[in-house]
Amino acid sequence: MVVVKIGGVEGLGIEPLCADVAHLVENGEQVVLVHGGSHQTNVISEKLGHPPRFVTSVSGHVSRYTDRETLEIFAMVVAGRVNKLLVEQLQGLGVNAVGLSGPDGRLLAGRRKSSLKIVENGKRKVLRGEWSGVIEEVNVSLLKLLLDHGYTPVIAPLAISHQGEMVNVDGDRAAAAVAAALRAETLILLSNVPGLLRDFPDEGSLIRSIGRGEVEEYLPYAQGRMKKKLLGAREALEGGVDRVILGDGRIESPVSQALAGRGTVIQ
Amino acid sequence: MVVVKIGGVEGLGIEPLCADVAHLVENGEQVVLVHGGSHQTNVISEKLGHPPRFVTSVSGHVSRYTDRETLEIFAMVVAGRVNKLLVEQLQGLGVNAVGLSGPDGRLLAGRRKSSLKIVENGKRKVLRGEWSGVIEEVNVSLLKLLLDHGYTPVIAPLAISHQGEMVNVDGDRAAAAVAAALRAETLILLSNVPGLLRDFPDEGSLIRSIGRGEVEEYLPYAQGRMKKKLLGAREALEGGVDRVILGDGRIESPVSQALAGRGTVIQ
Repeated sequence: MVVVKIGGVEGLGIEPLCADVAHLVENGEQVVLVHGGSHQTNVISEKLGHPPRFVTSVSGHVSRYTDRETLEIFAMVVAGRVNKLLVEQLQGLGVNAVGLSGPDGRLLAGRRKSSLKIVENGKRKVLRGEWSGVIEEVNVSLLKLLLDHGYTPVIAPLAISHQGEMVNVDGDRAAAAVAAALRAETLILLSNVPGLLRDFPDEGSLIRSIGRGEVEEYLPYAQGRMKKKLLGAREALEGGVDRVILGDGRIESPVSQALAGRGTVIQ
Repeated sequence: MVVVKIGGVEGLGIEPLCADVAHLVENGEQVVLVHGGSHQTNVISEKLGHPPRFVTSVSGHVSRYTDRETLEIFAMVVAGRVNKLLVEQLQGLGVNAVGLSGPDGRLLAGRRKSSLKIVENGKRKVLRGEWSGVIEEVNVSLLKLLLDHGYTPVIAPLAISHQGEMVNVDGDRAAAAVAAALRAETLILLSNVPGLLRDFPDEGSLIRSIGRGEVEEYLPYAQGRMKKKLLGAREALEGGVDRVILGDGRIESPVSQALAGRGTVIQ
């Protein structure tokens, strides 16, 4: 079984990705797709007159402030746009895809972070009304029920809190949680670079292989979102996944090529 | 088993509806929810700079022209907003809801209407690039798989064409198709009136009961969307549903009250 994480549908071509998934599914491989949608959420939030607000945490990390309205826009974009366009594309290729998000059947459940500790104009403050969360449980039986009946799950990065609140979660961490819960052999995290680069953005400086215990040492090379991917990789490996591949989402057959070892292989 | 159709989440309060569904599910009733979202699609289309376009068919019926962009906005709103807000609300009440739309697992499959015959400025013309459809098949095994495992399906009104294209479908007809496919005892179509009114909008003129074979005779009383509800009712009865109730979605315990016979009962 392979769990594949892709970004939003813009930028990374969904046609080659879906064609590749269809090819693998036809050949008997069980595939679970997890996707993102942050960029499109920003675009649509802007158009809807509720532009995204970015904040800097006390640890210096820049992230989106997800107020309730932003959460509802995020849900709309990831569960209603990105997810459905992927399902449509896969169905057109004969893959019986089923789109789900974390609140559906409590597929992804966890803890809501309702406030953020941020730094603004040099001052620390607590920003309340945050609607993001951390996954603590995956409903493996629902995923297996679908997989065992020939369906291919496509998962949008939302979760449900223990209090029944919908929250936004990081897609890479969601994919890692799903892969670990399913004890998948392989987790593939695709992005718009060939993998982890020693000398970003020089694509010739691709790091081809990292040992299971060495992820920590490679964190300093990770730029921007690649850091979350490495953290997700570590979580997946700790959770029992055999190998994680940071692959290139821009190429033909991105999943097959990653499975063949193209990208940064962590095992 | 009862299939319940509600409109979008605005207007009809989702709290009393979801509380009522939770009460029924706790008491062992199997419930399937089907919802709409046209009004919110219009609001969001407008905000996104792609205002809805309404056209008049040659038979005099006014409907939305669903071009590809409108379809994608419709999908975003119904599958990502209305559907997820319902799932969240139900999960908060302890109901293990799973949101789906027609393309998911080919839940609702059918025929795409790719053009509309319309009348504009007194002239007949054919408008191409339409993305709506008519349901011809319901994936009953997927619905039963979920119901048998304790999940409550919540369905957004989209379908997948035989060519794998996502299309917009009418929510009342979708509910009728689902109820017939599941051989549900009861189909409840909720709206913001008490039922079919003999003298619209006089709520005192509620028609309390219609015989199975009499739907045709009552069509002239149906105003606006109520006509689609009556057509859906007829389809459901022809498909094997025992009774259809046109109920009031604005009241407390709208489903229980409809089941108790409040509204227009067709059987």
